[in-house]
Amino acid sequence: MKDKIKILVTNDDGIDSPGIKALSQAMAKLGDVIVVAPDRQQSAVGHTLTVARPLRVTKVMRNGSLFGYAIDGSPSDCVKIAIHRLLPDKPDLVVSGINHGRNTAINILYSGTVAAATEGMLAGIPSIAISLASHDLSQDTSVAAEYAYLIAKKFVNSNLTPNFLLNVNVPSVPKEHILGIKVAKHSSSYWEDTYEMREDPFGRKYYWFAGEYCTPDDRLDTDDVALESGYVTITPVHFDFTKYDVLDKLSSFEEFNSAESNIDR
Amino acid sequence: MKDKIKILVTNDDGIDSPGIKALSQAMAKLGDVIVVAPDRQQSAVGHTLTVARPLRVTKVMRNGSLFGYAIDGSPSDCVKIAIHRLLPDKPDLVVSGINHGRNTAINILYSGTVAAATEGMLAGIPSIAISLASHDLSQDTSVAAEYAYLIAKKFVNSNLTPNFLLNVNVPSVPKEHILGIKVAKHSSSYWEDTYEMREDPFGRKYYWFAGEYCTPDDRLDTDDVALESGYVTITPVHFDFTKYDVLDKLSSFEEFNSAESNIDR
Repeated sequence: MKDKIKILVTNDDGIDSPGIKALSQAMAKLGDVIVVAPDRQQSAVGHTLTVARPLRVTKVMRNGSLFGYAIDGSPSDCVKIAIHRLLPDKPDLVVSGINHGRNTAINILYSGTVAAATEGMLAGIPSIAISLASHDLSQDTSVAAEYAYLIAKKFVNSNLTPNFLLNVNVPSVPKEHILGIKVAKHSSSYWEDTYEMREDPFGRKYYWFAGEYCTPDDRLDTDDVALESGYVTITPVHFDFTKYDVLDKLSSFEEFNSAESNIDR
Repeated sequence: MKDKIKILVTNDDGIDSPGIKALSQAMAKLGDVIVVAPDRQQSAVGHTLTVARPLRVTKVMRNGSLFGYAIDGSPSDCVKIAIHRLLPDKPDLVVSGINHGRNTAINILYSGTVAAATEGMLAGIPSIAISLASHDLSQDTSVAAEYAYLIAKKFVNSNLTPNFLLNVNVPSVPKEHILGIKVAKHSSSYWEDTYEMREDPFGRKYYWFAGEYCTPDDRLDTDDVALESGYVTITPVHFDFTKYDVLDKLSSFEEFNSAESNIDR
């Protein structure tokens, strides 16, 4: 490891959130921190990129010194523009969080916090997403910040090729109730979707997403179960889209495998 | 197959795009079509969900009869609210497109078109995303629509468990130049990111994403290569986040594997 590593800190709750403050303070023990984060709350934005309009960058000072840059875009935008435009050197580590709300199982797909870490990973940088399992913004993020430090330190000092990111979830319980760390697979939890229909003051209908989260798993080596049991979970995450086990089956369909055009000319 | 299947058609270019019109007409040969799509262009929104505000639903009539519903949300929102609120029965097929612009390789991550099909897949419904390899909105979508019909017909009549979606990309060339269909893996193409810095009329800086798409692959069994060669590509896509081959390695780290809390109390 270099003497002083460069760390990019971001999130999806916005640059003014308590979680990013706690995270940047914890990371400052490990290296030089620069914060590049959305200028406002960006929850459930998933892997959004801003391509149809330009981005604005605003310098953010705190106590007389540079805290970082606020971007009017998504978490993915922040990491991309930080790496490719704002920072003088490629960072040695990207850490995204501390998100308020777990990012386990299928939630990984919708998570701006994980999307930011994914951009770090795609740029070949060790990257970590860290989330606290509570949507209550008043919940203390200091324990999660301590785990972020411990995990980040080990990750940058390992010789692992960063072709995956570390997705970390921390139970929202007092420090002394945390049982330790568990390396876990993503669980098979899913959302049982419902949309509440309501009427606005003018009698017009509107619909609000109101899903219920279901966890059929009971294996302690899966993220939701380990998290509920009191463990900090670490899941190595990557995106390998192809479902290889059906490639041959699909190729065997006559309609999908022809030497020339399949439709009438 | 049932006599008359129910087909949900959506997209990310908006309900007024030419692509969704061509797609819904092609799908009408296969079953009863209902369109539920964003009320405006939603490119590169990825897997965004709208949770912080309600959704509005507007009935859209065309030539005196119901064409579908416009939603002020993302492609994912459209499929979720259609399945769980708007439609009387679960559809037998979800088809998303025809997108203007390829959705191959890593672009799958950023694609609203694929995100919509993903929601169909997550609901256990055979789902297809279909894209034309041209950003030019005036490009003809009729050939892509014909392939959508052919592929959809085969997919709903197959006995495959729909725990993946079919991601289809069509070359933007005249019908007679298409070489046929190729079942292909996602390629390893990537974006070489750049952000152009410009000045607005008031002398303030702004940044615009201007990446270059790089395709190092040369194997014809990968989507970008097959597409460039003139094939319609079909890639079975799923999301299996865990990078299993590093689970053991991570578990072997003393810091990541402890019976009790790893941080000082």
